[in-house]
Amino acid sequence: MRIAQVAPLHEAVPPKLYGGTERVVSFLTEELVAEGHDVTLFASGDSVTSARLHAVWPKALRLDPSIRDTIAPHMLLMEDVYRMAVDFDVLHFHMDYWPFSLFGRQRTPFVTTLHGRLDLPELQPVFNTFAQAPVISISDSQRRPLPQANYVATVLHGLPENLLTPQPVKQEYLAFLGRIAPEKRPDRAIRIARAAGIPLKIAAKVDRADQEYFDDVIKPMLAGGGVEMIGEIGDAEKPAFLSGAIGLLMPIDWPEPFGLVMIEAMACGTPVIAFNRGSVPEIIENGLTGFIVEDETSAVAAVSRLAGLSRTGVRHRFEQRFTAARMAADYLHCYRTLGAAERPMLRVIR
Amino acid sequence: MRIAQVAPLHEAVPPKLYGGTERVVSFLTEELVAEGHDVTLFASGDSVTSARLHAVWPKALRLDPSIRDTIAPHMLLMEDVYRMAVDFDVLHFHMDYWPFSLFGRQRTPFVTTLHGRLDLPELQPVFNTFAQAPVISISDSQRRPLPQANYVATVLHGLPENLLTPQPVKQEYLAFLGRIAPEKRPDRAIRIARAAGIPLKIAAKVDRADQEYFDDVIKPMLAGGGVEMIGEIGDAEKPAFLSGAIGLLMPIDWPEPFGLVMIEAMACGTPVIAFNRGSVPEIIENGLTGFIVEDETSAVAAVSRLAGLSRTGVRHRFEQRFTAARMAADYLHCYRTLGAAERPMLRVIR
Repeated sequence: MRIAQVAPLHEAVPPKLYGGTERVVSFLTEELVAEGHDVTLFASGDSVTSARLHAVWPKALRLDPSIRDTIAPHMLLMEDVYRMAVDFDVLHFHMDYWPFSLFGRQRTPFVTTLHGRLDLPELQPVFNTFAQAPVISISDSQRRPLPQANYVATVLHGLPENLLTPQPVKQEYLAFLGRIAPEKRPDRAIRIARAAGIPLKIAAKVDRADQEYFDDVIKPMLAGGGVEMIGEIGDAEKPAFLSGAIGLLMPIDWPEPFGLVMIEAMACGTPVIAFNRGSVPEIIENGLTGFIVEDETSAVAAVSRLAGLSRTGVRHRFEQRFTAARMAADYLHCYRTLGAAERPMLRVIR
Repeated sequence: MRIAQVAPLHEAVPPKLYGGTERVVSFLTEELVAEGHDVTLFASGDSVTSARLHAVWPKALRLDPSIRDTIAPHMLLMEDVYRMAVDFDVLHFHMDYWPFSLFGRQRTPFVTTLHGRLDLPELQPVFNTFAQAPVISISDSQRRPLPQANYVATVLHGLPENLLTPQPVKQEYLAFLGRIAPEKRPDRAIRIARAAGIPLKIAAKVDRADQEYFDDVIKPMLAGGGVEMIGEIGDAEKPAFLSGAIGLLMPIDWPEPFGLVMIEAMACGTPVIAFNRGSVPEIIENGLTGFIVEDETSAVAAVSRLAGLSRTGVRHRFEQRFTAARMAADYLHCYRTLGAAERPMLRVIR
């Protein structure tokens, strides 16, 4: 198929720094190209891809201090895609509601993956008005605050099968991976590990917005010992870090729409102890790839049961459910359904 | 004519607080209604107008702390206008490049007044791509950094003829009106007044972003005496404040695209001493409604010549050149030209 992938311009694809959306767009794009599809990636010019790169803007906006108005480049992006739309079989956007007005009035099938949380009040009237625009959720739970949208599928994220693999190291600690932020609850992770009597390693960045939380809440807790902060890590360091973990702690306190770290752990054969929020029950299979818990007490109890899970089994479920190939297959199915069923709805009517 | 006025949603029309764009949209809308046109104002729901109000959002976004994503309401605004577009003879936008993609592909003539400075680098590629979209500048000088846009006219701003009128008070000071900000150069105003030996009254607000500038630069200068800070004033207080001024000092150091305070002074018969930047030579008639100067030395010299200008003459030129009626007449001429000349270019082509 001739496929346009349209990414936001804030980060490169893949991102130079943190950027979940751009990372997933990269995984999907590379997999589609590997499978022989004709893919054009609309993204910032510092993106790296084996697809055809259409660089609307030379550089990721977040890294370009000269840019004061980030809406302008995205307006240009929409126009560029529109002008080239007839050359594609499908347009796949990763930009929230941005394409709805313009692309609802042209002929090429289009779909938008919603990557963020959908509980902002300002989204309600937007999706009331654009009730016809086809969208894809990244978990079923993500849809709850916004049931009126025209969901054509849920497509869970996937990772390239061999991006992260189990390493032959001994498991000696519990792991916390990602960002130090109140809704990620690293404080819970520290308490759970201590109560279980197992060291905790935290591989996480501290955003400027979260520095105060780190200084006020987390730093004082570190004095108690048994917790090692190893800073932010990249994909190169993740296999060793995750393979060395008895389990990943995911004690979140917000409706995370997906949560890539869970499948990163699974890729390394590492089971996950996760709080029952957001997408967790759709990703973790209780008693197979980890344990779903409701509070710290049951989390501590679950730690002692981690040894009973098969790490080979965890990796196996990753390979069955969370590879980029599975994700691409799901998306291709959506593209074909859109092309067949929705084309008559998308005619220019005025 | 059936006219749509489309304002941004950040402030109400007219604005509850500062908001030059929304103020001008209000003046234009009220004048068009007074002249018998059928006007619909697309704006926040707390707007006050004699036109038909189409409230896309209940409240001005800047005053609503619950709104995190201000793009969403504007996307909704664009869609609402699009769905109603066939019911209008012309669509007049005040939202920069926002309407270009969508409204360039429908039949109702549309035009956009560019209210801001046009020297941001990110505007260059946008206006290269949208070189056909008809726009109106608010001064000829505003166009300089962006010559490639499709300017159909310059329409200078205007005020309702009797909003501000000369009051029978004695002229005893020089006036500075607006905002304390580095590019407005209140420091120059203070030095000019002192060198001329005349008291200065500053009626200006200090934005949070400019508090440091005020504390570091302006506050220490006030100790020298002869300068009175009277805070921010509204339209009710402006006639007395401006009528009591020997002249308004406008020692700006940036290419101001218009500068409403100059015509507010003129409405009260008060001449203006303005630095030769941006729109100044298009608004001030040197030796008639004020003096255009290049530096502080010539500004001080001009102060002594203010008494030679006729305040009645200044007010007269305001009535001839800067009323809302003149502004509305200019816009109506544009609307009619667009309707006649540009309609064939705007057909749906796909």
